[in-house]
Amino acid sequence: MTTTTPAGRPSMADVARLAQVSTQTVSRYFTGVGYVREETRERITAAVDDLGYRRNQSARRFRTQQTNMVGVLSMGPINYGSAEILTGLGIAAHAVGMTLTISQMDVDWRDDTWVDEVVQSLEHLLSIPVDGVVVVTPYAGIEDALHDRMGVTPMVTVSDRPGSPASVASIHAHAAARTATDHLLGLGHTRIVHVAGPPGRIDAHERIRGYSDAMAAAGLEPTVLELAHDWSPQAGFAAARALGSPGEFTAAFCANDEIALGFMSGMGVLGFQAPRDFSVVGLDDMPAAAYFTPPLTTIRLDFRRLGGEAFRMLQTQLVTGEPGVYDSVEPELVVRASTAAPPST
Amino acid sequence: MTTTTPAGRPSMADVARLAQVSTQTVSRYFTGVGYVREETRERITAAVDDLGYRRNQSARRFRTQQTNMVGVLSMGPINYGSAEILTGLGIAAHAVGMTLTISQMDVDWRDDTWVDEVVQSLEHLLSIPVDGVVVVTPYAGIEDALHDRMGVTPMVTVSDRPGSPASVASIHAHAAARTATDHLLGLGHTRIVHVAGPPGRIDAHERIRGYSDAMAAAGLEPTVLELAHDWSPQAGFAAARALGSPGEFTAAFCANDEIALGFMSGMGVLGFQAPRDFSVVGLDDMPAAAYFTPPLTTIRLDFRRLGGEAFRMLQTQLVTGEPGVYDSVEPELVVRASTAAPPST
Repeated sequence: MTTTTPAGRPSMADVARLAQVSTQTVSRYFTGVGYVREETRERITAAVDDLGYRRNQSARRFRTQQTNMVGVLSMGPINYGSAEILTGLGIAAHAVGMTLTISQMDVDWRDDTWVDEVVQSLEHLLSIPVDGVVVVTPYAGIEDALHDRMGVTPMVTVSDRPGSPASVASIHAHAAARTATDHLLGLGHTRIVHVAGPPGRIDAHERIRGYSDAMAAAGLEPTVLELAHDWSPQAGFAAARALGSPGEFTAAFCANDEIALGFMSGMGVLGFQAPRDFSVVGLDDMPAAAYFTPPLTTIRLDFRRLGGEAFRMLQTQLVTGEPGVYDSVEPELVVRASTAAPPST
Repeated sequence: MTTTTPAGRPSMADVARLAQVSTQTVSRYFTGVGYVREETRERITAAVDDLGYRRNQSARRFRTQQTNMVGVLSMGPINYGSAEILTGLGIAAHAVGMTLTISQMDVDWRDDTWVDEVVQSLEHLLSIPVDGVVVVTPYAGIEDALHDRMGVTPMVTVSDRPGSPASVASIHAHAAARTATDHLLGLGHTRIVHVAGPPGRIDAHERIRGYSDAMAAAGLEPTVLELAHDWSPQAGFAAARALGSPGEFTAAFCANDEIALGFMSGMGVLGFQAPRDFSVVGLDDMPAAAYFTPPLTTIRLDFRRLGGEAFRMLQTQLVTGEPGVYDSVEPELVVRASTAAPPST
């Protein structure tokens, strides 16, 4: 069976079905971003020929006007995660001879004018002009305002917003937080606290939600400590001082690795060490996490690959005229020495 | 005595002398970037009136054509230092209603084509157009190629290149490394190794030079371990494993905080702890350093202020037509628990 596009022409999905590969692989074949085996490449070429697949007209029109420039709107401070996403975008762009123009905005989302600022930067990027735009945002409520201004220019969003529409690449912070909490539950911990990230950010909110869902599934009450002003270790240190001593809790899931570092430091000042007295899990797996004392159990989020994936989605749209399909980047549990069964009391 | 510009008109330096303030303060007065006390402001206003100081013609012409956009060429991976410089640039730009357009290039400086790539990005920025360009580079040999293309557009470089010409903002990595090494010498260490940053980078090279100069001044032989591929902890970990045990050395100065973290971790695996068995100093004072085990003695480099300073220099040139004067950001020793006198043997 062959499905057809509204115009009656075969789609990328049809090519994928006939070649017995995923749509993502067909997208890689066309865009040149990411690896496709020679044998697979031949199957796709055959399917393209058999179906008479042609890229659509708007993509063809684009090819004659291209600038080889992709605009990036990046919001919030540049931290480990956002820097890695930008790096992944840059590497993928470089691989196909394109350049990024980044508008970095350290906007204050509590300020009414922040959406206007972002829209202004978008309009600037569109006036340069660029072939497409990638929006990297930890804040909710921006997509609609941007979509209205995009016109025919393709856009891909990198965001942790749940239930996102097409053309959104996401790191699945909810699943990551749930995996972290399930790891602690699996070790036998029941009194688990969550040291949250800064309020107002989607990624921090999704971690709270993942933790809370895991606790609820285990029939346990969640305890969320919201002490963060940013993603730095201070919040973890303050949480340790606020909790006082293990006993009230036996484990902590911290919203990122740096907060986990601060938490271990704060507990250390009080004379308590992981994993002897309590367990702690971080989130990110930044390069330093393996060298903490003790080395940190964490959830690896491949932000660099996420950036590459977002670029590939945009490229698909530029080259074929069809929206890119998200090839999900799954979080991965990395067990190190900071977690163990709860101390017997 | 009043010096005059070649055109016979009074300069910013004349205003500064008459008002009895630094040229940097006069620059702040005109650009609005940075704080100037009300009383100082009045003195400068009086001096401007007395001298009949006028901004030069090219600056006046600029004011009628401005785009309120500053281009940034940033090279190398986005790490703690470069992210903070970009943040400082962004905050300073935002304060005066300007926007940054960043070209981030993870160029490979060993590749012959990297200079061409940078020049291409510069030409793109100039075609947007932008009011001025800030170049953030850890690689030597780019300034001349860029200067040739700039035309009348102002440019400021952020670099650790020694003996830099005007319009360069620098963090003084040489002085920072010398301060770090002098701290260890002052505690009585004589067998001090340096774990270097990645080769080919000006900032890594300046740290080696600062360390070597401090050792030479104390009549000691330098020992430089060049094991780094990037600025991550692996190099420190590898150095610790290569050194084996304290005895051959009693202290290490590591090229940044993450390398110091890896070094402490590697020594920990061998059963050695700072400051009991050896001392270690880092460089950067990234937020996590205060939470390492033990908290790290390091040299604070205020990269964010460096970014702000670079922006102010560019602004001075845009607003007054005179090159901005660099208001040096000095490195600062932060003593924590990772350093002590050498163990008595």
